[in-house]
Amino acid sequence: MRKFYFTPGPSQLYYTVEEHMKNALKENVLSISHRSKDYEKIHQQTIEAIRSLLVLPNDYHIFFTSSATEIWERIIQNTVEAESFHLINGAFSRRFLEIAENYQINAMSQVAEEGKVVEAEELLIPETAELIAVTQNETSTGASQPIDDIKKIRKAFPDQLIALDVVSSAPYANVDYSMVDTAYFSVQKCFGLPAGLGVWIVNNRCFQKAQSLMNKNRTIGSYHSLPSLLEKGIKNQTPETPNVLGVYLLGKVATDMANKGIDQIRRETEYKAAVLYQAFEQSEILQPFVTSEVHRSKTTLVANTAIPSKEIISKLSEKSFVIGNGYGKFKDKHIRIANFPTHSKEHIEILADELLKIKN
Amino acid sequence: MRKFYFTPGPSQLYYTVEEHMKNALKENVLSISHRSKDYEKIHQQTIEAIRSLLVLPNDYHIFFTSSATEIWERIIQNTVEAESFHLINGAFSRRFLEIAENYQINAMSQVAEEGKVVEAEELLIPETAELIAVTQNETSTGASQPIDDIKKIRKAFPDQLIALDVVSSAPYANVDYSMVDTAYFSVQKCFGLPAGLGVWIVNNRCFQKAQSLMNKNRTIGSYHSLPSLLEKGIKNQTPETPNVLGVYLLGKVATDMANKGIDQIRRETEYKAAVLYQAFEQSEILQPFVTSEVHRSKTTLVANTAIPSKEIISKLSEKSFVIGNGYGKFKDKHIRIANFPTHSKEHIEILADELLKIKN
Repeated sequence: MRKFYFTPGPSQLYYTVEEHMKNALKENVLSISHRSKDYEKIHQQTIEAIRSLLVLPNDYHIFFTSSATEIWERIIQNTVEAESFHLINGAFSRRFLEIAENYQINAMSQVAEEGKVVEAEELLIPETAELIAVTQNETSTGASQPIDDIKKIRKAFPDQLIALDVVSSAPYANVDYSMVDTAYFSVQKCFGLPAGLGVWIVNNRCFQKAQSLMNKNRTIGSYHSLPSLLEKGIKNQTPETPNVLGVYLLGKVATDMANKGIDQIRRETEYKAAVLYQAFEQSEILQPFVTSEVHRSKTTLVANTAIPSKEIISKLSEKSFVIGNGYGKFKDKHIRIANFPTHSKEHIEILADELLKIKN
Repeated sequence: MRKFYFTPGPSQLYYTVEEHMKNALKENVLSISHRSKDYEKIHQQTIEAIRSLLVLPNDYHIFFTSSATEIWERIIQNTVEAESFHLINGAFSRRFLEIAENYQINAMSQVAEEGKVVEAEELLIPETAELIAVTQNETSTGASQPIDDIKKIRKAFPDQLIALDVVSSAPYANVDYSMVDTAYFSVQKCFGLPAGLGVWIVNNRCFQKAQSLMNKNRTIGSYHSLPSLLEKGIKNQTPETPNVLGVYLLGKVATDMANKGIDQIRRETEYKAAVLYQAFEQSEILQPFVTSEVHRSKTTLVANTAIPSKEIISKLSEKSFVIGNGYGKFKDKHIRIANFPTHSKEHIEILADELLKIKN
């Protein structure tokens, strides 16, 4: 039986992926050398497609890593000497802090209750913090930091580097990337691609910081340090043999999304999120975990469940819908539903109907 | 026009890969959660297939990274406090040394002339070196360290950790992995898979070393430190969202190779290598770059060219054969030809004939 995946990543593939994979095989994309002109052309097309879709400033660089998890590590290695500051609103923002701690950074934080976000107005960040880490969309709780908050944080802390996690919200989130110094996402979320690729956006302030760390004789990593990534990046190459298929597919899907229209994708995402949240409100066994409406994620929706979540997951599974359980300690108490660009209005409406049929 | 790739990786896909990719799409392998039982099953099957194909000791662990380049970094972070020692016989063994230097390790070396290997009998390694890095098959020059040398090095240096690079020789190289403490390879070489996955084999001495570095309050990395990899690995998971397709395909192809028979694959590899080296010897424009027959790689064959290599590459390209140019400073002076398990005897024979047709 064909299944439909609403898991918060990996999830249902973007509807054009299968065709692009077949073309990749036909065009020998998986056999070409990563030092060939053929690869450089693919690399460049993907970079340009992402730059255009996200409306990135011209002087921001785009690099490929193996995962967003890797990017957390590379940000710490390359841009922090002693102190980082993390806005924590769930398991993934906390994971970034833990990676900073692994590198013996003084990782400070302000922690919001789960399901909430740290209010921008209430932020207390020491001047000594070199980096401020903000998770725009926390995949574990479905709490989302309003885009306006980014501007407020930038204004209040002009000297710090700001790192923005858009792992499960790009390209839906309408972010002005010139407000942050670095941002990153994974391709298996909104882009609907096979996992195994992280995308790292970096401005020149990050390079300057990496250079200053090097001048102090500090280790900034090796093949994936910013200078190493840049050296190959300007040639549309990567330091290592990359996930060529991932780079190829990302370029194709980003182009498909641009052709469809990012505004259209955003409108549809908001409509579908409203349908699902309405179902959460109307259901007798569900309610939105995030109480404040402005903080509710439009791409990864989380609901409290009055019955064990596995019963809901199991009932939907009979209808061939696969949704996610809660994260960590919420495993049995939450369901998590992805609302990514590949999820059609029709499927979301049917899913909402099925959710409403499940009674206590 | 259909092309045949004899590039030294990425190269021609193993002949079953396309079918396995189609099955992966059908079976929703690219949509399943990396924390699901479905993923754990795939992970376990791949681990078992690799363990069986390479005849690994039971207490050796297998981890997935994004590339062999990453593994160089992780080995240094996790197993070296102050001193490493590298047998250098080309660009890739040198790259490992450079990564050690990036991490401010005192990286010592013994350097063989290009096209040769460091003779095991002539090794002078200080007792203080914690790790000895040996490149079994140097992809840049086609020089291969005889398997017997590994045993000699193990015997002479029982206390050091030995890291063996089998990036472009596993599973052809008939290595007794109990002779080394860690080994690693890339999937886009002999396994004929899409790039984007490195396989890291690690014994318990490496874990003990990582623990002792931690006890000394030294940073051993974060999500891909050995303790972090082990914590998830025992559950057949990975710390980050992995390249699920890569893990799936590796398991399938390793199983296909086991079914064909590793002895059969080794015999065919040796026959095909003999055909190609004979063509190098007979050609008026080619000669094997590695002068010593026992040091000639059977999987990545390199020849000096009497005419610019691009002319040879271009002529073969007209016959739809794609071969590699020389590495680095040898770009125009060498050709490099992969002889991987997917390359059939028939294709290698035709390629040898075509090589012989090219005159000065």
